[in-house]
Amino acid sequence: MADNNKKMVEAITSMEEDFAKWYTDVVKKAELVDYSSVKGCMVIKPYGYAIWELIQKQMDERFKALGHENVYMPLFIPESLLQKEKDHVEGFAPEVAWVTHGGSEPLPERLCVRPTSETLFCEHYAATVHSYRDLPKLYNQWCNVVRWEKTTRPFLRTREFLWQEGHTVHATAEEAVAETEQMLNVYADFCENVLNMPVVKGRKTESDKFAGAVATYAIEAMMHDGKALQAGTSHYFGDGFARAFNMTFTDKENKLQYMHQTSWGTTTRLIGAIIMSHGDNNGLVLPPKVAPTQVIVIPIAAHKPGVNEKAQELVERLSKRFRVKADFSDNSAGWKFAEYEMKGVPLRLEIGPKDIEKNQCVLVRRDNREKYFVSLDNLEEEIETLLDTLGKALYEKAAGNIANRTYRCASIEEIKQNLAEKGDGFVLAMWCGEEECEDKVKELTGVGSRCIPFKQEHLSDTCVCCGKPAKHMVVWGNAY
Amino acid sequence: MADNNKKMVEAITSMEEDFAKWYTDVVKKAELVDYSSVKGCMVIKPYGYAIWELIQKQMDERFKALGHENVYMPLFIPESLLQKEKDHVEGFAPEVAWVTHGGSEPLPERLCVRPTSETLFCEHYAATVHSYRDLPKLYNQWCNVVRWEKTTRPFLRTREFLWQEGHTVHATAEEAVAETEQMLNVYADFCENVLNMPVVKGRKTESDKFAGAVATYAIEAMMHDGKALQAGTSHYFGDGFARAFNMTFTDKENKLQYMHQTSWGTTTRLIGAIIMSHGDNNGLVLPPKVAPTQVIVIPIAAHKPGVNEKAQELVERLSKRFRVKADFSDNSAGWKFAEYEMKGVPLRLEIGPKDIEKNQCVLVRRDNREKYFVSLDNLEEEIETLLDTLGKALYEKAAGNIANRTYRCASIEEIKQNLAEKGDGFVLAMWCGEEECEDKVKELTGVGSRCIPFKQEHLSDTCVCCGKPAKHMVVWGNAY
Repeated sequence: MADNNKKMVEAITSMEEDFAKWYTDVVKKAELVDYSSVKGCMVIKPYGYAIWELIQKQMDERFKALGHENVYMPLFIPESLLQKEKDHVEGFAPEVAWVTHGGSEPLPERLCVRPTSETLFCEHYAATVHSYRDLPKLYNQWCNVVRWEKTTRPFLRTREFLWQEGHTVHATAEEAVAETEQMLNVYADFCENVLNMPVVKGRKTESDKFAGAVATYAIEAMMHDGKALQAGTSHYFGDGFARAFNMTFTDKENKLQYMHQTSWGTTTRLIGAIIMSHGDNNGLVLPPKVAPTQVIVIPIAAHKPGVNEKAQELVERLSKRFRVKADFSDNSAGWKFAEYEMKGVPLRLEIGPKDIEKNQCVLVRRDNREKYFVSLDNLEEEIETLLDTLGKALYEKAAGNIANRTYRCASIEEIKQNLAEKGDGFVLAMWCGEEECEDKVKELTGVGSRCIPFKQEHLSDTCVCCGKPAKHMVVWGNAY
Repeated sequence: MADNNKKMVEAITSMEEDFAKWYTDVVKKAELVDYSSVKGCMVIKPYGYAIWELIQKQMDERFKALGHENVYMPLFIPESLLQKEKDHVEGFAPEVAWVTHGGSEPLPERLCVRPTSETLFCEHYAATVHSYRDLPKLYNQWCNVVRWEKTTRPFLRTREFLWQEGHTVHATAEEAVAETEQMLNVYADFCENVLNMPVVKGRKTESDKFAGAVATYAIEAMMHDGKALQAGTSHYFGDGFARAFNMTFTDKENKLQYMHQTSWGTTTRLIGAIIMSHGDNNGLVLPPKVAPTQVIVIPIAAHKPGVNEKAQELVERLSKRFRVKADFSDNSAGWKFAEYEMKGVPLRLEIGPKDIEKNQCVLVRRDNREKYFVSLDNLEEEIETLLDTLGKALYEKAAGNIANRTYRCASIEEIKQNLAEKGDGFVLAMWCGEEECEDKVKELTGVGSRCIPFKQEHLSDTCVCCGKPAKHMVVWGNAY
């Protein structure tokens, strides 16, 4: 296994030395993705895709429990359809891929490869919803989308990515607003309870909202290096698209009304967020609920009689409740420890002749390497508890990072000083609401507005930039 | 509910009158798909997509149980990559969609939207497989593909469709051949046991095989109108692509060898096959294992006290084992019967005041409308049995259709006569193996070769066309 052994030698670049390099090392060495000759697109390898499948499954269950239904819309959008909503086309046209030929024939009209599917859902709803009885329509789709990004990084920013996009229409603005908020809460809850990743919920500023939206809400996570990562967005459209696409219905009084609309999405970048929230210098650290393997069983002194058999027996027994694998290869135990640490497997189970004698095994946590000698009699309960504890510890560690890297600032100088001394983080500072000040803060400090968090603090009465009366506290920061 | 009531009036065109119109009526009225402004592409609506999700889930479990892993390859293929294998590019280039611009910039090289992903998998395997220890690689992906078809029909032939494509590489030809056969068997078993659809397994003739394959195997189903539908294919590539893409590995003796390769796929056209295998003049008839709703509960005399409550109680009870819904709308019972017959729900459960008195309910089978008065005490077992019986009955009916429409023919005249008198079907006739004769049979009788079935019969010693010694019995027919 010359190839595999090499991995132990090629250490992962340490985070402190070069965070960006650490990230790409982990992504590559944990075998999450690979590059191909298709620039800016990724090959998602089995281990990476298995994480995505676990995200999909658990998120999809939550969507369906709230009455959403999955559909599938075409990959292509005719140019004329994309152009129907003015702000939307302005926002997306510069970054779409255009199909101009089908076979050897030029197309009569260019088709863009969907960067997002509002226009297709609008067309569909306009054609199929007629009465208030048809509302609400709560559709979602899991698919690929394309945005022609100039600079790309696996999971974080790629020309093609996988996502889900929910698109709903409602009879009233109130219902649509409630849906927008509900889905933001679903995302936040998912990040916190499934990915063990705390997030800040808030509203995007006018300059930062989705092309065509009345309001964009987002959840912002903080990565290990203090940079923000937008982990999900939920948009309220009012009836803007409805007017552009003539999406009407007859209400209970038989009057024609415009529909009220939302959309919301999360993407494969969640995997990037997992890596940069929980990973360490030994590689990936996976939240137990999305770990393709939750427990890796490693036979110790496997040449001794009965060890491999016992290990196999444990795998079969534990598979009923957990995602478990064993490594029976002839690599050394040390090599295996390093390998599954790098892959972020939450628990390592070691079983050797002495353990068998004592009817026990050793469990080692990935996050802090704590060792537990556990009786085989109540192994399932111990694993359940440890996975749960580990998940909570990941959350607490990430929350600690946010606490350490949140800077409450009353002046531009203070912002600059905090960033210079402590590095990237969430800068909390008051804002007057003017785009001019938003731009100026960015220009002077380097950090942009991430969101206006729902949980407001009253840091002062005045805008950190112009000194005029403040309207909101804003989270500022650098972002992925 | 003026809109909904209309459906009862607009009857579905009868199959006997116009099978093609019957098909599109069912597809539209059972709310499986809708059209959009994107020509040749379909909007898959919730009910249609739910069927696809059930197909995906059950097929994916079978793939994984055999050691396959899911991955995700890019949507785009650079033109130069597509061109690496001569036969492959000749086969696919005429029907691909070309992306020529990213944003406002023309691309340095055209990218085609994947019509299939052999080339991307080849590139990946060439880069990542080095030693016999890395083999086999058993990858699969669920994704969308695009082929620029001129004539399209929902599910059967669309410019974009959803599918799974398995791509595997092996150390030896024997292993690759075994994989090709194994996956064909998985497909046949899936069609027979999940979709209740009998299929003929066989090999495609040289002229009909996949672009770049050494051999293509297929399963052919027969639709209600006697036409064939290719329901899945499995290709053996030998080392043809391996040579074109320089896919080598070092074997146990440390010698450089080419990999041996397969690919296999099934698509959303399986939904078309379900419709045309089992449907009738009242609409869809769904195989129980892929029916989004297996049991529809309909309260009878719902205004009477306790009826809706009892119906709701049954839904909650049965949901633990089945996919169940109730219709509490104020539409008439007759309207509801027609609605869920059209949607192909396998079992209707009627519950009214008299039934409640007798501690029973009425179950009605979708396929033959047989009525069963069933005690509520052992309802789950009765439903289980009925769903199973119904599935088997669908299979038997479809097998009967094949038996009735299989014509063993010894001459061109006999072929013509059978087709003229009995309509489309599987024509069994001997063939010398020459492409010239294959073309001539098509020219003279209108039917093409579907496959050389694994189950050969010795109908005569000579080719039905030229009279020279026969090599194979071929299934001929018209196909979707």
